[in-house]
Amino acid sequence: MISVVILGTGNVATHLYNAFLNVDTIVVTQISSRALDEVPDADITIIAIADDAIAEVSSKIKNGFVVHTSGSVDLNNLQNATRKGVFYMLQTFSKDKKVNFHEIPFCLEAENTNDYKLLEILANSIGKKIYSISSKQRKTLHVAAVFVNNFSNHMYKIGSDICAKNKVPFDILKPLILETALKIKELSPEKAQTGPAVREDNKTIKNHIKLLDTSQQQIYKILTKSIQNGN
Amino acid sequence: MISVVILGTGNVATHLYNAFLNVDTIVVTQISSRALDEVPDADITIIAIADDAIAEVSSKIKNGFVVHTSGSVDLNNLQNATRKGVFYMLQTFSKDKKVNFHEIPFCLEAENTNDYKLLEILANSIGKKIYSISSKQRKTLHVAAVFVNNFSNHMYKIGSDICAKNKVPFDILKPLILETALKIKELSPEKAQTGPAVREDNKTIKNHIKLLDTSQQQIYKILTKSIQNGN
Repeated sequence: MISVVILGTGNVATHLYNAFLNVDTIVVTQISSRALDEVPDADITIIAIADDAIAEVSSKIKNGFVVHTSGSVDLNNLQNATRKGVFYMLQTFSKDKKVNFHEIPFCLEAENTNDYKLLEILANSIGKKIYSISSKQRKTLHVAAVFVNNFSNHMYKIGSDICAKNKVPFDILKPLILETALKIKELSPEKAQTGPAVREDNKTIKNHIKLLDTSQQQIYKILTKSIQNGN
Repeated sequence: MISVVILGTGNVATHLYNAFLNVDTIVVTQISSRALDEVPDADITIIAIADDAIAEVSSKIKNGFVVHTSGSVDLNNLQNATRKGVFYMLQTFSKDKKVNFHEIPFCLEAENTNDYKLLEILANSIGKKIYSISSKQRKTLHVAAVFVNNFSNHMYKIGSDICAKNKVPFDILKPLILETALKIKELSPEKAQTGPAVREDNKTIKNHIKLLDTSQQQIYKILTKSIQNGN
């Protein structure tokens, strides 16, 4: 039996709490990070709160093993005097959307092998995709996630703006958006690339640029160049 | 009964031919665009060949109604002396991958209502998502598709490069890539946006930029600015 305390009441904390509730071998308690005087003892104490609050909240916890759930905060940012670790799930959590933990990558880190194994057992109790990721690797994952998530989504936004301006339903592009993401399961992004940039089809590129506003033109040119330079 | 001739032997031509073969009310013939002397008469003649060859090939066809399948070529680029139209399917076609025509948007255009209705019957015989799209609208769709397909894929490529450089498996990011694309089904890209740019989290942005090479930095900065400016 593993005892777990989750500090925090946000999306990550609540989804995790509900997942652990269904596991026979885990006893889980969820409390607000403002109730620091009432933190019960536990094998693993998970701080699932805003990045900026991790240092201060962790400094007040006396439990033996404390982990945070952040993608961009170093393990050593934890200020508890005891053992430290990271239990990071790389996915966007929405309040009302059910989470399939079997699809979510768990990125684990601990200061010693026993603690790492404990986190591994915990992750395996609800998930399937478990990775050992150092603080440095986690930082690079976080910036890579900005490209594949935030910046891809911004490409959808620009596509949607172009459609709106020309009174074309954005819905027409949605199957292509999904197909583009699904392709990556089988092909590397480099091999999956198509279109005028990689074809060096300068006539089409010129025609496209004419249809865009100044900010879109700048983005079109830089990304076309980057595709052509292979970087 | 509708008679259809498909000129061309590429992916689009072959997938279309196979789809029409299964429809009782359509008689379909596929021939190479080099066999222009042997084009049989048909209600609809579909030219599914490279953009650059459409004008020349169409100029040699005597059939009554000729359409092309290109996203970026104007209806008036067709040089047949008879009626003209466009039968454009907005999707990436791969040779070995089965096509689900029910998921593909058909963008149709014709010079008169009767011809448009004929194309609509043809599209409905294999598909479900039918749109009336003018040549001008089609051009804007094509440039929007570059953003949501080619440029999104390039964001995956950069994410993959960042992972490779830091010895992190790119597989960790694949569920996030899929989730990002799926989110668009329910939320507008604007509402779906998360991350340091939209949060104006300048500390994280600074830290991210330090981890990137020069070309990646330039792209990171321009896209962050574009997200923050809402354009």
